[in-house]
Amino acid sequence: MSTVPSKSSGAEAAEAILSLAQELQPICRSITGDGLRKTLHILGRELPLTIHEIPSGMPVLDWAVPNEWNIRDAYIKNAQGERLIDFQKCSLHVINYSTPIKATMTRTELEPHLHSIPERPDAIPYKTSYYHEDWGFCLSHNQRKNLGDGPFEVCIDSSIKPGALTYAQLVVPGSQPDEFLVSTHCCHPYMANDNLSGIGLSVQLAKRLLKSQPRLTYRFLFIPGTIGSITWLALNDSSRIRHGLVLTCLGDANAFTYKKTRLGNAVIDRVASHVLRHSGSSHATEDFIPYGYDERQYNSPGFKLPVGALMRTPNGRYPQYHTSDDNLDFITPKALAGSYDSLCSIIEIFEHDGKFLNLSPRGEPQLGRRGLYNGSQEETMALLWVLNFSDGTFSLLDIAERAKVPFARVKLAAARLTAAGLLRRLVENEQ
Amino acid sequence: MSTVPSKSSGAEAAEAILSLAQELQPICRSITGDGLRKTLHILGRELPLTIHEIPSGMPVLDWAVPNEWNIRDAYIKNAQGERLIDFQKCSLHVINYSTPIKATMTRTELEPHLHSIPERPDAIPYKTSYYHEDWGFCLSHNQRKNLGDGPFEVCIDSSIKPGALTYAQLVVPGSQPDEFLVSTHCCHPYMANDNLSGIGLSVQLAKRLLKSQPRLTYRFLFIPGTIGSITWLALNDSSRIRHGLVLTCLGDANAFTYKKTRLGNAVIDRVASHVLRHSGSSHATEDFIPYGYDERQYNSPGFKLPVGALMRTPNGRYPQYHTSDDNLDFITPKALAGSYDSLCSIIEIFEHDGKFLNLSPRGEPQLGRRGLYNGSQEETMALLWVLNFSDGTFSLLDIAERAKVPFARVKLAAARLTAAGLLRRLVENEQ
Amino acid sequence: MSTVPSKSSGAEAAEAILSLAQELQPICRSITGDGLRKTLHILGRELPLTIHEIPSGMPVLDWAVPNEWNIRDAYIKNAQGERLIDFQKCSLHVINYSTPIKATMTRTELEPHLHSIPERPDAIPYKTSYYHEDWGFCLSHNQRKNLGDGPFEVCIDSSIKPGALTYAQLVVPGSQPDEFLVSTHCCHPYMANDNLSGIGLSVQLAKRLLKSQPRLTYRFLFIPGTIGSITWLALNDSSRIRHGLVLTCLGDANAFTYKKTRLGNAVIDRVASHVLRHSGSSHATEDFIPYGYDERQYNSPGFKLPVGALMRTPNGRYPQYHTSDDNLDFITPKALAGSYDSLCSIIEIFEHDGKFLNLSPRGEPQLGRRGLYNGSQEETMALLWVLNFSDGTFSLLDIAERAKVPFARVKLAAARLTAAGLLRRLVENEQ
Repeated sequence: MSTVPSKSSGAEAAEAILSLAQELQPICRSITGDGLRKTLHILGRELPLTIHEIPSGMPVLDWAVPNEWNIRDAYIKNAQGERLIDFQKCSLHVINYSTPIKATMTRTELEPHLHSIPERPDAIPYKTSYYHEDWGFCLSHNQRKNLGDGPFEVCIDSSIKPGALTYAQLVVPGSQPDEFLVSTHCCHPYMANDNLSGIGLSVQLAKRLLKSQPRLTYRFLFIPGTIGSITWLALNDSSRIRHGLVLTCLGDANAFTYKKTRLGNAVIDRVASHVLRHSGSSHATEDFIPYGYDERQYNSPGFKLPVGALMRTPNGRYPQYHTSDDNLDFITPKALAGSYDSLCSIIEIFEHDGKFLNLSPRGEPQLGRRGLYNGSQEETMALLWVLNFSDGTFSLLDIAERAKVPFARVKLAAARLTAAGLLRRLVENEQ
Repeated sequence: MSTVPSKSSGAEAAEAILSLAQELQPICRSITGDGLRKTLHILGRELPLTIHEIPSGMPVLDWAVPNEWNIRDAYIKNAQGERLIDFQKCSLHVINYSTPIKATMTRTELEPHLHSIPERPDAIPYKTSYYHEDWGFCLSHNQRKNLGDGPFEVCIDSSIKPGALTYAQLVVPGSQPDEFLVSTHCCHPYMANDNLSGIGLSVQLAKRLLKSQPRLTYRFLFIPGTIGSITWLALNDSSRIRHGLVLTCLGDANAFTYKKTRLGNAVIDRVASHVLRHSGSSHATEDFIPYGYDERQYNSPGFKLPVGALMRTPNGRYPQYHTSDDNLDFITPKALAGSYDSLCSIIEIFEHDGKFLNLSPRGEPQLGRRGLYNGSQEETMALLWVLNFSDGTFSLLDIAERAKVPFARVKLAAARLTAAGLLRRLVENEQ
Repeated sequence: MSTVPSKSSGAEAAEAILSLAQELQPICRSITGDGLRKTLHILGRELPLTIHEIPSGMPVLDWAVPNEWNIRDAYIKNAQGERLIDFQKCSLHVINYSTPIKATMTRTELEPHLHSIPERPDAIPYKTSYYHEDWGFCLSHNQRKNLGDGPFEVCIDSSIKPGALTYAQLVVPGSQPDEFLVSTHCCHPYMANDNLSGIGLSVQLAKRLLKSQPRLTYRFLFIPGTIGSITWLALNDSSRIRHGLVLTCLGDANAFTYKKTRLGNAVIDRVASHVLRHSGSSHATEDFIPYGYDERQYNSPGFKLPVGALMRTPNGRYPQYHTSDDNLDFITPKALAGSYDSLCSIIEIFEHDGKFLNLSPRGEPQLGRRGLYNGSQEETMALLWVLNFSDGTFSLLDIAERAKVPFARVKLAAARLTAAGLLRRLVENEQ
């Protein structure tokens, strides 16, 4: 039996997540390079991570590890030498994976390399060009309007050359070899909700599990999106992964969204739905689609790993998405605390669910003479539900679902009945 | 084939139920004792019941038969010797299973032993204390307000001592040993809807079945709640029970409620839902929960008997519940008649359902030359439904459900087609 | 692989259907006789039909082929010899299968033989009396009101005597022996929607399939209603029919109705529902009932052929039904074109559906380097859906349903992926 504490401290976790996010936000991350490397080493200060460097060119499934991108500086200067657009002020100003350039050019020449959002005139867009050679600047539409006609001194001091792709992992061993995968992408510069929230929650969950002796083995991956999960899947053994979650977009103040696995009725699907249903927060569960985050790779037909995605507002559905408005103000302590609590409730079910056997199954046992009839109506009902359905067929989660009550209540009832000698947990090979 | 009449006379049954209820209401029933014994002997005048006396202390499943409670008199007198509260006027005035007391006391001393309902100031509550030694008086809140300061002469002339638990049963033998259980609790004093309605309906149904030669064997139980079903289950063979119903709360003027078996899709669940759907009355079907009446015991995991509960307003959901307002005015002839008719329709399906074989299955047989094409559109459609689906897979109930018509119409069509040589009933071992 | 063109020309088909309908409308059809025979010979001009003559009296299943009905003339003349009601003007004026009569009679004598619709005073009803000897005239209620008192010269120059029942069929052979049945009744005189629309659509679909080398074998039946399908079923081998559709009432301007097979989840049920869902038109799918058109016979329990019915407004649900108002003005080119397109989309799925195998199933293959990442978001999503679900379990239709997109889009994605070497179609014995 696990010793994971049953009561989480979301508020404390949220504080730690925000503090880490503040430190990580200025670093210019990408799918490779020193920004990603530095990020993972900071996480390595929090957790006993193993950090892997996979050389560029290494074949990984249908792909190859790309060359490493690094950037030192970038700007657009006017004739007076003033930095009109300055990478040092915001890492989003350069298209991620831009090739280097140093040139003087007119506004007309520069124009095709400028990217802004007319509908959102103060926001800088976040753009990438990983697999198509290009360079460009992202700027707010208002900046663009005031840029003037040039000539401009245009500089991107970047390099794309053989190096490595960096990722980190942590395995928290459990009493069972069956694994629960927690995967978070770490490749987005600046973005608070669509990246830092997931990173921070993974770190907090890992720290919590490290203090326990869990039943399941938990594997945490901190990887660049898409190519990171493809690389990990190519080079590692995923055969013990029984359940999993991709964590991202968990800091905004809106409703939860749980995106199901390709299977649609995996245990993680049932558990996440149950937890959100009883979270007291509004939420939606959505069917799997082969688009989104790294769950695309885990759920591909050659792996079929039952990995869902826990989010609040999903990718592309909030106006701040992939702009400089997805910043530290956009994620709230309350939302992060709620996300952490829901995540812990999910883990609690994986740690504690099981089937039990009513040892007095003929009629109701007399609860009164065992001192079990003195609780609230809710508590008594939970005892009756567990007794009636603990015939070896229904798990505690099944019973909680039928009784329409939170898992924790049914779990507590099972503990009281077990203590009273009316119930025993079925061991693995009896189920 | 059964000879149960297909047309019931609900109005006649309702009259008999109300007449019996009037006779039974004043008797102070409990889970043991002379009130229960007298009640069952009155029912024995109506039906050839077997009455069982199970001695106190007898172990029954996880319980033991309790000592027998009897009461002769009880009152609260004022200093003038006037009976302010008088058990002779209403059996609810004493907490059921009160220990005896005879004392003079002040209002302050008496107060903890008084029970009333401020929100329902004219009603006397019905309270019990079977398994916790206590005594007390129930009275209307208005009576309580006018009781004065005392001193009072307080008397409960009761006894709790070894005796017996009494229950009655009747078996109406059918051509098959498979049993249909009809169970009614008989332990509530005074309550008209929550007890007398169920007792009366059971009696009327039993009388009707006794006049027929039914296909199924019907077992009627008249038992005290909870401990009665536990006692019966402990001491009897329940292995031939295939279907069952608990009957109670069937006299109020509100919609039907059918509470399903633990299984959720037992035959009785399908049949009761079908009948209520076509009853012309509003109704609800509810999933099983391990709380309510004796269905809790029958559906416990050591027995798993598929016993549902047919009610109008269930326990605890009407304001008159367990008060003196659940009286003879609260149950209406119309509601009782409707309940009886629905009950008979349920039994009709159990008696007559079956699978048939279309003997001319290739294309539609020519109905016209057999004089079968001259009825109403509804009748013709019923013939076509029965012909098309009588391939040995679908029962008449299945067909009625698909056709969205009452069972009786499909049953009649099957009879006409059988008479015309187009259909034959499959016997047991062909199905 | 089929070479059925994937893009239909509904408008062209509609024009041909209307032109044929104009030619066929004046012919007085019935379930036997020269009108039916002439109709089928006209269809034989369009298609290489086999025309069958089945002699009267031949036993067919539970029926016998009826005597042949023919009619040359019919009228009601007034004393001046004027034709007040004239069969030559409209074939509906005589009850179909009327026995011959020639007599002078008063209005009172004639009255029981007159049929009109008071609620629809300008319409002539369509009535039949196939299996009950009778004669009569159908006329508009206004005609009836102005008929006068007589005496009338009443003449029906008809005959009912041994002859034959005529039906036609066409088999378009496919690369597989599995058959798709398209059945249309041809027995209604005058009715445009409830007959000519179905006949015309069948002809157009057959012509189209004759120009292709389809995968399935398509069997077209042009038969009189009820007795025609019964006769065909009695005398032919239906064992290779795997799917089928009855076509009728497909020219009115209202929403589609697809009536499911008795099975309810046959392939044709899924396909027709999918096509209508993506047709852009409003539509309803209805469960099978054993009433309607020839699907009643095909779905009878002795055959259980999974034959649905594709209609717009079903029989009996439009006020023009079985009256002279179901005429050529009631069917529109747009409705016929839409019906034809939906029909072709249904056939397209039967021709092209199948299961595929993702040949790069571990993670997503890199679409970009194969030039597959340059389409619209819709196209890219279709590629990802096909890749993720092509594990040999899901067919293209399954994938289209999960992705909630039209089959054609998924089919196109599969073609592109196959061309890129990322996918291969499973052959029959791998599925």
